[in-house]
Amino acid sequence: MPEYVDSASARRRDPFAPLLHNPLAAMLRQHLSTDRATHAVPTAGAPLPVTTYADGRARINLGTGNYLGLAGDPRVIEAAEAALHRYGTSASGSRVLNGTSALHLALEEELADHYGTEAAVLTSSGVNANLALLSAACGPDDVLLVDAHVHASLHAAAAASRGTVVRWRHNDLGSLEARLAALDPRAGGIVVVDGVYSMTGELAPLAGIVALCERYGVRLVVDEAHGLGVLGATGRGAAEQVGVLDRVDAVTVALSKSLASVGGAVLTSRAVADGIRAGAMPYVFSAANDPASVAAALTALRILRAEPERLLRLQHNGELLRRELAAAGADPVPGRGAVLAVPTGSEDVTAAAWRASFDAGVYTNAVAYPAVPRGKGVLRLTVMATHTDEQLREAAQVVAAAVRATRDGDRELAFA
Amino acid sequence: MPEYVDSASARRRDPFAPLLHNPLAAMLRQHLSTDRATHAVPTAGAPLPVTTYADGRARINLGTGNYLGLAGDPRVIEAAEAALHRYGTSASGSRVLNGTSALHLALEEELADHYGTEAAVLTSSGVNANLALLSAACGPDDVLLVDAHVHASLHAAAAASRGTVVRWRHNDLGSLEARLAALDPRAGGIVVVDGVYSMTGELAPLAGIVALCERYGVRLVVDEAHGLGVLGATGRGAAEQVGVLDRVDAVTVALSKSLASVGGAVLTSRAVADGIRAGAMPYVFSAANDPASVAAALTALRILRAEPERLLRLQHNGELLRRELAAAGADPVPGRGAVLAVPTGSEDVTAAAWRASFDAGVYTNAVAYPAVPRGKGVLRLTVMATHTDEQLREAAQVVAAAVRATRDGDRELAFA
Repeated sequence: MPEYVDSASARRRDPFAPLLHNPLAAMLRQHLSTDRATHAVPTAGAPLPVTTYADGRARINLGTGNYLGLAGDPRVIEAAEAALHRYGTSASGSRVLNGTSALHLALEEELADHYGTEAAVLTSSGVNANLALLSAACGPDDVLLVDAHVHASLHAAAAASRGTVVRWRHNDLGSLEARLAALDPRAGGIVVVDGVYSMTGELAPLAGIVALCERYGVRLVVDEAHGLGVLGATGRGAAEQVGVLDRVDAVTVALSKSLASVGGAVLTSRAVADGIRAGAMPYVFSAANDPASVAAALTALRILRAEPERLLRLQHNGELLRRELAAAGADPVPGRGAVLAVPTGSEDVTAAAWRASFDAGVYTNAVAYPAVPRGKGVLRLTVMATHTDEQLREAAQVVAAAVRATRDGDRELAFA
Repeated sequence: MPEYVDSASARRRDPFAPLLHNPLAAMLRQHLSTDRATHAVPTAGAPLPVTTYADGRARINLGTGNYLGLAGDPRVIEAAEAALHRYGTSASGSRVLNGTSALHLALEEELADHYGTEAAVLTSSGVNANLALLSAACGPDDVLLVDAHVHASLHAAAAASRGTVVRWRHNDLGSLEARLAALDPRAGGIVVVDGVYSMTGELAPLAGIVALCERYGVRLVVDEAHGLGVLGATGRGAAEQVGVLDRVDAVTVALSKSLASVGGAVLTSRAVADGIRAGAMPYVFSAANDPASVAAALTALRILRAEPERLLRLQHNGELLRRELAAAGADPVPGRGAVLAVPTGSEDVTAAAWRASFDAGVYTNAVAYPAVPRGKGVLRLTVMATHTDEQLREAAQVVAAAVRATRDGDRELAFA
């Protein structure tokens, strides 16, 4: 690539400047060095309850979306292998032109059947499920009413739609109602929330949100990326957990967590699904998901449905870790499910707590800006159905000690 | 999902209306029925030179992005299988938090080495490579100068950036220069083109474009989704073909074509790559590519580099099909590479020509609006390195006959 030489005018700005001067870039570069990393390091194997990292050391893994533990399940691997042999390594084109196989149709059918919707539309990622749905919805006078803390892909998807974006205070029904009451009576509206907030494990107050949507006659979209396979009697997510799933207009999911794969999907009516297939850029103009990943997701979904004990075990594990952390003085943010967040605060404390846990044999996720507001960092912990009680008890002690030590260190520094 | 009942106000619009009333939806629904399809039907196997479709019939496949024929290569399948066993079926999280494995780093390194760039950044799709790069570039006073016919993902990516989007007439250097000359002398600029236009096989006039970019001091981004593995002495694409690759600021690619996988990448400087990793939504907030697909792409790339005869054979096949079509009276749009387009015109003629070819044993891509302007439909044909001369000669006869017959039918109708 060329050195950028401004041959025309010494005064011309470099349009790549926002990329070149991102202050987070230097921090992120450290993650490749395991001996001084302050967050994520590469793995050398599958995301199992005990995972091997690039430094060769195995650690208890409290930092993976493999919630049901199916990413290493022999049945899921075998299904992916069979797909490789039958369909090859790539669909080699878009769904619309040539990339649709019987396998893609089978996964869409099984997902729709599980959710009780008329249709499911597969996408390359959970991000693209949100982009596909919202970017193709709304006329210019419609309004998207977006919880301020939704996943970044929902913010981007709302911004890509033709409608106007209005944010309301996170999980605050009063704030939502004020925005709804202020809507032009003719304007269409879509309320947009995460079922489970991915960085904190908080649930959306869906019963209240559904009631407001019905009172004001607006649509509701719920991202269940961290609810699928985790919450509800059959693992359909936060909306199932509170009994309002049949009152949601569209659910989006990621296949990269509980379903041990990659990609995403929109669960909705036949008519909306057809609209996405006909006109949503990230669906129409993207290559179809690779056959091995489609087979993996299909098999994982069938296991979720056939083995409810796996879901119960995951729910048990989430509650166990939550209790153990609280007992050890590291209260997580109130929430439910597979994601737990222990507040750390500043970027420095978050990094130090991550490093202390990592050195003591527990892998966590250090979450700082831009995934959460500045200064609101957390150690994000996730459980799997395949963690043992003992692993979770041990890990809770390690994490609580790391957070306590770094908080105290920070306090000392502040008073030094 | 609920029936949408407007309980609050009979006057409120439905914000899903643009999805519910897309006129293309009805047409697209037909593709699941092989006996009345007028475009894409599902496959029942891998995208090989002769592919089996959902009706059980095998056809010569002139409609796949598997240009190098590696999606069914035993070495590529074996590498994907090994990755499944070592890394599981899913990375189960974002690159930034926990989804990076040694395999992801190896593919990024091999891609950067092949392109001679400092860095490569993997993304979930080619679409997301474009979104990641452009959405994170530009300040509010910078300008994206976009060829009017670039891939839909580049239009969306430019729209998602903070800059202003200006379109110039497709492949028209005069139109580009007029826009460059009109730029504010302080404004940063990025020229955005496809190396190979995906629906027609036309090449961008890159020598002229590079010269203009240098004269006016603006950056250049080239999407080589259909150039990688196809054009140039080592298969790096249209920019290599004309000898200007080292004067391009960022190349984006898809792994779902020649590299027998799924996903995308941005090839660029270390500093720009770090900026993407630190702040581009589709990279930071998306799950990492599944290990099997990463291993497939890595192995396919190594085969491309180790077996230049495969690239030569693909280039031979493209020229052969081009000549055979012209000789049979079905001149393709001028271009070069693996994509050829025979003009058909209206949506009806395009659909009829597709159907006639399909019935006669040749699979093609019917391309109509919105992939091309209304009334500018084409039968889009793609070749593979593994097609035999005989298969391509036979297919050219079939396609040419189908296009002639439907054009004549259309003319008769017009004069009836």
